[in-house]
Amino acid sequence: MEGETSSSHSETTPLRYGHRAGHSQYSDGSPVNVFHSVNFRKDSEVSDVDDAHSQGHSRSDPRVARAMSWQNVEVTADDRDTVGSMRVISSKYESLDYDQVENTLFSYEENLILFQNVQCMQVKRWFVMFLIGICTGLVACFINICIDQISAIKYSTVRHFTKMCRDEACMEYALLVWNGFNVTFVTIAAFMVAYIAPVAAGSGIPQIKCYLNGVKVPFVVRIKTLITKVFGVTLSVAGGLSIGKEGPMIHSGAVIAAGVSQGKSTTFKIDGKVFEDFRTDTEKRDFVSGGAAAGVSAAFGAPVGGVLFSLEEGASFWNQSLTWRIFFASMVSTFTLNVVLSYYNGDPWTLSNPGLVTFGKFTGQAYYGYEIPIFLLMGVAGGLLGALFNGLNYRLSVFRLKYVYLRLSCVTEAALVALVTTTISFTMIYFISDCHPIGSNSSPEPLQFFCDDGEFSATATLFFNTPEEALKSLFHDPLGAYKPVTVGVFFCIYFCLACWTYGLGVPSGLFIPSLLTGAAWGRLVGIFVHYVFPGGHFSDPGKYALIGAAAQLGGIVRMTISLTVILIEATGDVTYGLPLMLVLMISKWVGDYFNLGLYDIHILLQSVPLLPWEPPAMAHNISAHDVMSHPVVTLNTIETVGKIVDAMSHHHHNGFPVVDPNEVTDRSFGTYRGLILRSQLIVLLKKEVFNETVGVTSLRQRIRLKDFRDEYPRYPGIKDIKVKPEHRQYHIDLRPFMNPTPYTVSQNSSLSRIFRLFRGLGLRHLVVVDDHSQVVGIVSRKDLARYRVFHHHFKLELEELHISI
Amino acid sequence: MEGETSSSHSETTPLRYGHRAGHSQYSDGSPVNVFHSVNFRKDSEVSDVDDAHSQGHSRSDPRVARAMSWQNVEVTADDRDTVGSMRVISSKYESLDYDQVENTLFSYEENLILFQNVQCMQVKRWFVMFLIGICTGLVACFINICIDQISAIKYSTVRHFTKMCRDEACMEYALLVWNGFNVTFVTIAAFMVAYIAPVAAGSGIPQIKCYLNGVKVPFVVRIKTLITKVFGVTLSVAGGLSIGKEGPMIHSGAVIAAGVSQGKSTTFKIDGKVFEDFRTDTEKRDFVSGGAAAGVSAAFGAPVGGVLFSLEEGASFWNQSLTWRIFFASMVSTFTLNVVLSYYNGDPWTLSNPGLVTFGKFTGQAYYGYEIPIFLLMGVAGGLLGALFNGLNYRLSVFRLKYVYLRLSCVTEAALVALVTTTISFTMIYFISDCHPIGSNSSPEPLQFFCDDGEFSATATLFFNTPEEALKSLFHDPLGAYKPVTVGVFFCIYFCLACWTYGLGVPSGLFIPSLLTGAAWGRLVGIFVHYVFPGGHFSDPGKYALIGAAAQLGGIVRMTISLTVILIEATGDVTYGLPLMLVLMISKWVGDYFNLGLYDIHILLQSVPLLPWEPPAMAHNISAHDVMSHPVVTLNTIETVGKIVDAMSHHHHNGFPVVDPNEVTDRSFGTYRGLILRSQLIVLLKKEVFNETVGVTSLRQRIRLKDFRDEYPRYPGIKDIKVKPEHRQYHIDLRPFMNPTPYTVSQNSSLSRIFRLFRGLGLRHLVVVDDHSQVVGIVSRKDLARYRVFHHHFKLELEELHISI
Repeated sequence: MEGETSSSHSETTPLRYGHRAGHSQYSDGSPVNVFHSVNFRKDSEVSDVDDAHSQGHSRSDPRVARAMSWQNVEVTADDRDTVGSMRVISSKYESLDYDQVENTLFSYEENLILFQNVQCMQVKRWFVMFLIGICTGLVACFINICIDQISAIKYSTVRHFTKMCRDEACMEYALLVWNGFNVTFVTIAAFMVAYIAPVAAGSGIPQIKCYLNGVKVPFVVRIKTLITKVFGVTLSVAGGLSIGKEGPMIHSGAVIAAGVSQGKSTTFKIDGKVFEDFRTDTEKRDFVSGGAAAGVSAAFGAPVGGVLFSLEEGASFWNQSLTWRIFFASMVSTFTLNVVLSYYNGDPWTLSNPGLVTFGKFTGQAYYGYEIPIFLLMGVAGGLLGALFNGLNYRLSVFRLKYVYLRLSCVTEAALVALVTTTISFTMIYFISDCHPIGSNSSPEPLQFFCDDGEFSATATLFFNTPEEALKSLFHDPLGAYKPVTVGVFFCIYFCLACWTYGLGVPSGLFIPSLLTGAAWGRLVGIFVHYVFPGGHFSDPGKYALIGAAAQLGGIVRMTISLTVILIEATGDVTYGLPLMLVLMISKWVGDYFNLGLYDIHILLQSVPLLPWEPPAMAHNISAHDVMSHPVVTLNTIETVGKIVDAMSHHHHNGFPVVDPNEVTDRSFGTYRGLILRSQLIVLLKKEVFNETVGVTSLRQRIRLKDFRDEYPRYPGIKDIKVKPEHRQYHIDLRPFMNPTPYTVSQNSSLSRIFRLFRGLGLRHLVVVDDHSQVVGIVSRKDLARYRVFHHHFKLELEELHISI
Repeated sequence: MEGETSSSHSETTPLRYGHRAGHSQYSDGSPVNVFHSVNFRKDSEVSDVDDAHSQGHSRSDPRVARAMSWQNVEVTADDRDTVGSMRVISSKYESLDYDQVENTLFSYEENLILFQNVQCMQVKRWFVMFLIGICTGLVACFINICIDQISAIKYSTVRHFTKMCRDEACMEYALLVWNGFNVTFVTIAAFMVAYIAPVAAGSGIPQIKCYLNGVKVPFVVRIKTLITKVFGVTLSVAGGLSIGKEGPMIHSGAVIAAGVSQGKSTTFKIDGKVFEDFRTDTEKRDFVSGGAAAGVSAAFGAPVGGVLFSLEEGASFWNQSLTWRIFFASMVSTFTLNVVLSYYNGDPWTLSNPGLVTFGKFTGQAYYGYEIPIFLLMGVAGGLLGALFNGLNYRLSVFRLKYVYLRLSCVTEAALVALVTTTISFTMIYFISDCHPIGSNSSPEPLQFFCDDGEFSATATLFFNTPEEALKSLFHDPLGAYKPVTVGVFFCIYFCLACWTYGLGVPSGLFIPSLLTGAAWGRLVGIFVHYVFPGGHFSDPGKYALIGAAAQLGGIVRMTISLTVILIEATGDVTYGLPLMLVLMISKWVGDYFNLGLYDIHILLQSVPLLPWEPPAMAHNISAHDVMSHPVVTLNTIETVGKIVDAMSHHHHNGFPVVDPNEVTDRSFGTYRGLILRSQLIVLLKKEVFNETVGVTSLRQRIRLKDFRDEYPRYPGIKDIKVKPEHRQYHIDLRPFMNPTPYTVSQNSSLSRIFRLFRGLGLRHLVVVDDHSQVVGIVSRKDLARYRVFHHHFKLELEELHISI
């Protein structure tokens, strides 16, 4: 868990008066003084997510490692039942908080700040973005060069064996050697993921999406995750799996950004004492956006696409200067990659390697107006195939969550996939004879395999090469470079392999396999079109391969403008903008008719309380009463240490409204004065900022904002704070520390109004007050996330999700 | 004025207790019961902006036409003094309101809505965006074809005369004919602007920027503005001014979007009764964003750049589905233009005309790493030249505001500029002899002019062609196509002419003249670099022309990511992404050191209360007390008609807090119950929704939400509502109509907190309450806009602007 402070106001589910219950608020008026009824909801103890505790468990019980890998907490019987449901949200995820606590301490220190400091901060922000860009570019280079070197050794060995064995009829050795390489690489990668950082599995895009949305996914931006990701993706790509190295770059960029901007690492117990000002959720997320964009930029040579990706997945409000900085990081990242790879490839000044994958130059006439209907049909096909892919992968993922959760079984599955992939590829190269004379292909190293001398195997071009090479070959090789049957068989096999592979316990990107699958069937369409209209301008199957690739990818991930721009930039030419956009739009629409995008499916399977962009439709008639959690645990403006400790021990809320105590009724909990965070209370208790008497001493000399910042982001737990028994009767005046003017909503506000405020300003807690400023409830992320609109084919439906404890 | 409802809470300036005044709130406690002290601030009468009234004036008094053209109201002595100051904001601008009034009526009708209706709205939104794209594309085609045809006639006539007169020595006739064409065209354009729609002058980008920011600029999205803009830009471009036709496309797209989405026109008194659901500020602005993006897209063939432009200028929060729709409109617009222009150019299926201007294909190696330092220096030069341009244009604009405000003088100035431009061009062609043999140039029609037979004049290629042709020539003509002195003289002259022309009373774009100026000096740099390093890869001056063009444009407009993407898309190649971005960044930084971007200068000169993206730095210690307007005019929950009419007649506020009346003190104005808008009150009075007794009748049968929507956006004024004297004692129960749960802030909130809420949610009024829900003040746009951070070279300073009445 990132930060010990456990999940926010959540455990009141049984007491909530739901919307479905017919607005019967307050029919149950029992828990009058919540604060003193500490035996209320004992089970909060059970789900109290303690960092050390859960980590300890995850080491001793291998079941934990995978089954709920995002959360890394013990799997309860309840979880087992709900596994595979997309109608549940978990209350265990914590949120990020973008609200500035403008308390007395803050005002005091703010008064000392000069405009010079403001400008200095600006310069620092640009500098950090520069560092993020450089580091992300370098990491991308590292991955690329490692894969290049390892693959070179592997390929030359395997080719040596095939060459040798063709004469001596010992083909099984070649297969064995190839399998030996691949299974070893993949197994190591899977081991690293299972035993070091389970969250490094997959592409990381769903996790980054959640983080940018404001959900803390445990371990997601930790250094050890980065290390696992980088080495893992290198090995699994070198191991010949049907995966890409591009998706993991986005996650890597995000971790690099978090690391660089915070200047400290929990894993290595290093604290660089630099950039301390950036140790807030707001600043950190801004940098992580930049890192994710830099990752996209390095992966596809798409700086604008990277910016749009960050915005599409992360921005709750547009900020011009932040966007400009993110763009800067993206540009630096692709430039760094370009320089280093150009140098590596021996031509340092040409700068022709903007991304890990580029689609190569499409020459000749782009497209004609009358081809657009064909493109639209391809969009429909892409949507259907994408929906099929997602449906299959969903079932597979549920199966995995239920049965393949032991660490060892994850590793075994990965090894099995590597074995099957290699064996099938080898078999196909052996059985499908598609030989062409050398020179008819753009590939620098023609693969002979089982073809006659002077010929090369087109089947091997697809099955034996890295996916990036195969993709370029499908895009650019002339008509007749492949027999249709080769491409057709490749499509079927690769579709299944890619579907099986995504979700495996290794770092793996989804983009390249999707593009490759789509390019295969797109090329088939191109060959068919040429067959039907033999003359004319339809001669280029590569163009259709590109459109097919876009359609397939769009049908699977369902991203909108960012994906369009990424593909345009990877193509290096804006000419294909319109057809790409049309195809992506159609494939999204068609796919959305059947199911969600693959990333969203994986997010929902993890029960993440993701907030959508807009309030759910028809939410105007759901009021704050239905939404809010109730009763509320409040603290008095001047409170005893004992009560604070009790409140924090018995409830794992992250924010406590501070009230004037005099007017607690069964419906309200005192006059609202401000909000204090658990993390602040922890620091106050740790620093012993309390007095024997009620009178206030000069607190400023005893505690500064820096004391709070130093503990960020992993505050100690309440169990780690040892409060002496004699201190329990001491008093803390919470007023200088609480946020005295947090945003509030009236109890009659509608869900959409609350949603807009909460989402627009990135809040973590929102206190609901009545007409006389009395606290009546509190709204947190999962209270809003549980109202979700689902598409059932052409119908929309507003559903209220179950909140698991 | 759009809408009679006049400016919001503003006239309390003299009573405001400012931040500078040392936090002495409430030192003057006199206006206890504001509602009854109707003689409080009589001068609100003077500035009461009545639509008919001000329009009537503007017809009788020609001084109004120009001097404050954005506001179209009478110019007072006070205004005369503040003209040219950028430290004033006007309280006469109204704001858009994005808050949903969730009153009883709304809830009632919302309950009747099914999910089918929600989906139907979605489909309609896509359809409207489609229409906007089509119409914008067609308008762009219309402008392009008209200019093409008119210019063809003009050029052939002038060339005929030059050819004839070269033999007969009657060059003065050629000059006369050329001048005759140009001055006539420009004069007609200037007449149209001055007498039909003064707001159509200039590029329209500043006005659209304001609109998207949330400020209503009068007449800005009216049909007659569109007509003036379209014909005006056609004539003034055909008239040979140093302007482009691209900027006005953005404004045109915005007007088209407003017109199409609202389905009615005030100018033509047409009400299509379609898309009635879209008659709200929120929906309208969403469509206007789409229209502006479609305009950019049609102008530069830059759909992604268009989307980013809309976001950069307009979005206060990111909305994925809206962005996707905007992208759709952009794509449709460029596609429509492409199809029509390809057909017009005789090759219907090639689709090679994505925008009004394209930079043409840059072939050959893009750039080398070691050229980047040169590019950076060019960025610095662009920033310096841009700042010089803006400084000169600022002085010129102030001069114009002070002395050139009569309609006739505006027309005269335009004619004078046309005369001077033509004469100088002719003189230059005559005096600068830069002849080359025909065939060494890419131009299809070589211009002979004063060169020998078989040669053409390079000077004429720059001075006689349309700016777009000249730009392409500078980008693509080989080294040696121009003598350096030709390009140098052209740069100096064009810089001055462009500076003089921008701000003239004709529709005119700034992009093309800026690009052309920059391309000229960029090409000079290219020639110089070639001279210094004669061998090597520096042989292409066109590349330097492109970089120079970007640097100059960036130095003038200071846009960030959107400009980068627009230029990348216009180039048609992502290769130049990095150098373009670097150069734009450097030129913005250098330019910002000296002054603001040109659009911002023109916005500030018009005293528009534009809200920046972020709260001003150091605003944490300015509290709601300093910011808010005070005292507040409130209404009781059940109020007499007479009092409502009086309140609306004596105060031109747009929102009135509704309170429980019992507890009015000198510091607070009753317990806050809700907010009612002026527009709602007008409709209530017009429909006579009041009762003789206090009891409530079934109001739903008497008034529906549609009644309010039908009046949008131009509600009648209070003077137009005739209330019978016997009705003055009748009562209105405001509770079913008011917004019962508006957002509020506490009186201790900081400026930055208020700013975030106000800006993030697009509010128009924000009521400030004390700890007991008592109304103590109200915050509107200008209260926030008056705190502005200015850069003084390397220093930032927070200034409090003067609010003019």
